[in-house]
Amino acid sequence: MGASLAGALKKIPAPPFIRGSTPNLHEGEKALKKGLLDEYFPENRQAVEGADWIVIAAPPSVIPSIWEEIAPAVSPNTLMTDLASVKLPLYRQFRERFARTFINYVSSHPMAGRELHGVDAARPDLFRDRLTFLIPFSDPGHETGRDMERFVSFWKSAGCGTHTILDAMEHDRILARISHLPHAISFALLGTLTQNYRERLPHWNWPAQRGGALADLLRISWSSPTLWADILIQNKDAVTETLEDYGRELDELRKHIENGETERLAQLLSAWQEKGQDDIRYGQL
Amino acid sequence: MGASLAGALKKIPAPPFIRGSTPNLHEGEKALKKGLLDEYFPENRQAVEGADWIVIAAPPSVIPSIWEEIAPAVSPNTLMTDLASVKLPLYRQFRERFARTFINYVSSHPMAGRELHGVDAARPDLFRDRLTFLIPFSDPGHETGRDMERFVSFWKSAGCGTHTILDAMEHDRILARISHLPHAISFALLGTLTQNYRERLPHWNWPAQRGGALADLLRISWSSPTLWADILIQNKDAVTETLEDYGRELDELRKHIENGETERLAQLLSAWQEKGQDDIRYGQL
Repeated sequence: MGASLAGALKKIPAPPFIRGSTPNLHEGEKALKKGLLDEYFPENRQAVEGADWIVIAAPPSVIPSIWEEIAPAVSPNTLMTDLASVKLPLYRQFRERFARTFINYVSSHPMAGRELHGVDAARPDLFRDRLTFLIPFSDPGHETGRDMERFVSFWKSAGCGTHTILDAMEHDRILARISHLPHAISFALLGTLTQNYRERLPHWNWPAQRGGALADLLRISWSSPTLWADILIQNKDAVTETLEDYGRELDELRKHIENGETERLAQLLSAWQEKGQDDIRYGQL
Repeated sequence: MGASLAGALKKIPAPPFIRGSTPNLHEGEKALKKGLLDEYFPENRQAVEGADWIVIAAPPSVIPSIWEEIAPAVSPNTLMTDLASVKLPLYRQFRERFARTFINYVSSHPMAGRELHGVDAARPDLFRDRLTFLIPFSDPGHETGRDMERFVSFWKSAGCGTHTILDAMEHDRILARISHLPHAISFALLGTLTQNYRERLPHWNWPAQRGGALADLLRISWSSPTLWADILIQNKDAVTETLEDYGRELDELRKHIENGETERLAQLLSAWQEKGQDDIRYGQL
């Protein structure tokens, strides 16, 4: 997502000068060649020296060590953000150890993830018309002040259409439902399909037999296992709670199937669709 | 799917003359106007009189009553099929009551469903490069004989790229996994999202906040509730068994999350992806 963001910023009328850093030298060189970066550094600390903006694109559990590494090189006026999918563990560490060092930090989460990653998967239009969550980490003043406006403008430049400002805990509980649950579901579906069914079902060949529905449901099951293990566990409490909510709905559905209650099952599915349509109408207001 | 099939057949070089029937007069008239049908009849029995081919596109539980209705009007040489998503209950009723009446019956299931239905949703390219399952219902001879060739050709004309011949029970157990489980999952996800989260999460607004992942996973949750309640319950045994398989995988994933075992969770996700890649390689052979 870092590479896509660099690509998006390079498309605006007066594009910024972008210095980048990644431990993967090969990726860094590719980003230079593609014009996503103007300068590449193997060390994060070199890349942030004198920067107006710092964007950290890394798995959530890695970010505190990056904060530690760059802290001595960050000037007080620098505007900082990250793109992590889970915020509460970061926020806690931030408040404890970095709140006095980074005084203009608003954490971000644009709803624009994909199952691919790295420079080759970069898409400058990735953020177009997407929503970004903004979570102030520094002391109050960001929510309504001039600084928050700059973060909003930043994401508008990248293409985002709208934003929601909220706290880390609410962010994580919302994300558990709209993103982490779908990923867990999709992974478990892949796990189900890859059982040894061929022994019992001689014509079993899901890749050749799948229709559009299955392809759609499996797309995100190809997401990075290390990144997603990190996300699901960093957001453990909210994800566990959400899996329980989901389990209850699935149980209700299964109960009707087991009891052969066609009409009641149809009513349940209709009720979900009606509530969904209501939510969509509300969501568009 | 019936309307899409009519559209597909109308696109071939020497298109067949198509007589259609549906209890919905309005849909029938639309199909005539769109050129999907040459003649429309409100009664199934009128539509099949003297036909070379009969295709029944109806929810699985409705089909036996259609068989009963049209039986007196079907000639022995007519080739017959249906497009139902569940075959075993149909097959049992067929063997018991219709095997001597319909002697050229091979049930079909093209893997080309969509969440939309009716004449307005018809797409003549719906079957292009899709696989179709073929399930012989009549007495042996169809599997390798001249008649099966005609069913294969029929689906090739409609655009299907390949086919698999198998029995009703295996079809239903495969479909439980590649189609009915994904639908159950998607419905339950919609059920989860439409809970009253707004009371606890003031910024909750999943329709505005969803990324591409959620949109993909929810697409099929808008499928027809009556059709899908019928399918899930007609295939009750296989669907229940499959939901148990899925529940076990989801439990394993949840256990690692609850225990905070990031590395083991990443290994589990990687193992599923590796098996999936193996299956895809095997599936393409």
